[in-house]
Amino acid sequence: MRDPEKERDFQPEPGVLTTDAAAIRDDPSIGVVAEVMGGIEPAGSYVLDLLASGKPVVTANKQLVARRGAELFAAAADAGVQLRFEASVCAAIPVIKVLREALVVTNVHRVLGIVNGTTNFILTEMEGGASYDEALAEAQRRGFAEADPTDDVSGADAAAKMAILATVAFGSRVGLDDVDYSGIESVGPLHMAAARQLEMVVRLVGAATVIDGMLDVHVRPALVDRHHPLAAVEGAFNAVMLQGDAIREITLEGPGAGGVETASAVVADMVSVIGTAQTGFLQNDACWRELERLPRGELRSPCYVHLEVGDRPGVLADVARRLAAHEVSVARLIQTPVEGGATLHLVLHEAPRRAVEVALSEIVQLPEVHAPPSLLPVISDRGVVELGWA
Amino acid sequence: MRDPEKERDFQPEPGVLTTDAAAIRDDPSIGVVAEVMGGIEPAGSYVLDLLASGKPVVTANKQLVARRGAELFAAAADAGVQLRFEASVCAAIPVIKVLREALVVTNVHRVLGIVNGTTNFILTEMEGGASYDEALAEAQRRGFAEADPTDDVSGADAAAKMAILATVAFGSRVGLDDVDYSGIESVGPLHMAAARQLEMVVRLVGAATVIDGMLDVHVRPALVDRHHPLAAVEGAFNAVMLQGDAIREITLEGPGAGGVETASAVVADMVSVIGTAQTGFLQNDACWRELERLPRGELRSPCYVHLEVGDRPGVLADVARRLAAHEVSVARLIQTPVEGGATLHLVLHEAPRRAVEVALSEIVQLPEVHAPPSLLPVISDRGVVELGWA
Repeated sequence: MRDPEKERDFQPEPGVLTTDAAAIRDDPSIGVVAEVMGGIEPAGSYVLDLLASGKPVVTANKQLVARRGAELFAAAADAGVQLRFEASVCAAIPVIKVLREALVVTNVHRVLGIVNGTTNFILTEMEGGASYDEALAEAQRRGFAEADPTDDVSGADAAAKMAILATVAFGSRVGLDDVDYSGIESVGPLHMAAARQLEMVVRLVGAATVIDGMLDVHVRPALVDRHHPLAAVEGAFNAVMLQGDAIREITLEGPGAGGVETASAVVADMVSVIGTAQTGFLQNDACWRELERLPRGELRSPCYVHLEVGDRPGVLADVARRLAAHEVSVARLIQTPVEGGATLHLVLHEAPRRAVEVALSEIVQLPEVHAPPSLLPVISDRGVVELGWA
Repeated sequence: MRDPEKERDFQPEPGVLTTDAAAIRDDPSIGVVAEVMGGIEPAGSYVLDLLASGKPVVTANKQLVARRGAELFAAAADAGVQLRFEASVCAAIPVIKVLREALVVTNVHRVLGIVNGTTNFILTEMEGGASYDEALAEAQRRGFAEADPTDDVSGADAAAKMAILATVAFGSRVGLDDVDYSGIESVGPLHMAAARQLEMVVRLVGAATVIDGMLDVHVRPALVDRHHPLAAVEGAFNAVMLQGDAIREITLEGPGAGGVETASAVVADMVSVIGTAQTGFLQNDACWRELERLPRGELRSPCYVHLEVGDRPGVLADVARRLAAHEVSVARLIQTPVEGGATLHLVLHEAPRRAVEVALSEIVQLPEVHAPPSLLPVISDRGVVELGWA
């Protein structure tokens, strides 16, 4: 521990508190160690040292697992001991256990997650009419957001969690560097209004996909169809949807943070370690598969585009022609007149993101297109049912 | 197996198919047995015999576990072997594993579930405008409902699943006889219209609650607030919400039936048996707690009441007075004029069901009350957040 002298709201037995990691490592009466210090160092060295000397470890340390997971998993496998880390992702929502132990034969190929409660709270407040600044202030007042909210609102926290989820779901090493992420800073009233008109909601969604043996992991604000399970996730809650061949889709929802929730996950992991201690069945083999990265922009998705255009006959035809030239087709269009022109809300059929980006780069060259367009992925598909568009 | 001669779409190795249960029991090379025969007998005797002779068993047999669980758990505990039954409830949704292994320290006190896909499909179709008969026919056409749908639409199937879930969640023996259930046969367009007006949906909800050390398990059609996670469960999907002290609430959603989904759960259970085989940590202690049954009618819940009343000044006051006399208060009221009177949709604040029933029995004595009233529980509360009524 960092500081045995710190004032605590419980009275530990004498000798229980220590800063001597080696003493824990060398005590044969200790069967499993929970690391809840946080931070990369010294926690990482302690965990590696414990694993190397044959002590199973349970950790709640998201940054450590996301950044140095490969090293930790290898150390655990080499020593033949377990490393469990349920609490590192979405607190008490048991998604790691479910992936590793319940979905062992389901071939999970996609993980969709709302894995950051702070941003989900902010987006839910904005849905109710608050501005971004008001919503952030309210999140801070309620203790959902830090004084410096960058890690949450930038998508970085969600990216770390998606790296861990992708690693476990696909049995392949996915580091934080493999996750392409953006945050919610640019989400505004315009997106909220568009979502309402389209019967969707705005959510910060992490998506990890294996497609044709290639991997894509990203975190982005997205429009989610109202009938999709992720659309029902409100406030500071988290949810993870697992899509696989044998299960279609399973969604787990709950509070993704909190001290008691995290402690509950840590203790459950310790119980699981003890319950599986002497079987030689270690489930540490998380990194056996090498997956190529899908080149950026090749992932196919339906998406939403916002354009402000001038009032000239034919401008809509010009926009549609540019899209069609890149084989991007329009699924839905809502055109609303505004002073001197129109607002266009377009929902585009599934297409590679790059094709949409290239088409948009041409569209913004049109003299009648006023503002830079806004592009968000759309999430409407379920495990097997393509909801489709009327 | 029942019939080794049956035409199958795979070609098993010679000697793999057998009707000789004793041979399986006595084969030391077999480490775990999956029972997927269905039916109470001979499956029950086989399972008991296997457990007694020290073979771990995995079963997908809902009726067997719901009706004879106590006996099976005792046999497993006596022999020191495992009995797992994930596939017996909601197919591949890993709610048993989550309850037993992930929520070990959370003190789950309430389980809410949409655990029958057939009825949920029918109710979702009715929401979209279909009649009960049309919706049932469509469910049969799609293979979601049997030719004789009684077991599903009566709530009996859901009751068996709730008995199993309550047993595991509360560590107390809950048999099928302990579950008070009713089905969806009496749900009609009137309830659908009321739900729409109240921003709710109609769902067949199983609820298992421990309150002041007493147990209540029931299955009933209910009105579910649109913002409640169970309201988002559509079509033939299932969901189970677990509420506990340390986790607030965790909801698991997915397909609750299907051959491949069930097989996935059976295989995962077999892997879990092997993974925990030699630890002496059996998790068979599901029946350690004796819980008294909460007397019928004492469970408190908000509820919805529909009344058709005649057009006389003071009738509303009379209704309200009868409710108030039993300490039942009105949270919301929607009164719509109809020919010769009015339709009343009342949402009542949380009250013991018996108080509401007694008040209603007085209200129907009023000469202006035309039709028998309709009473459904309302589900609006989350694990910690009482949504309340404006």
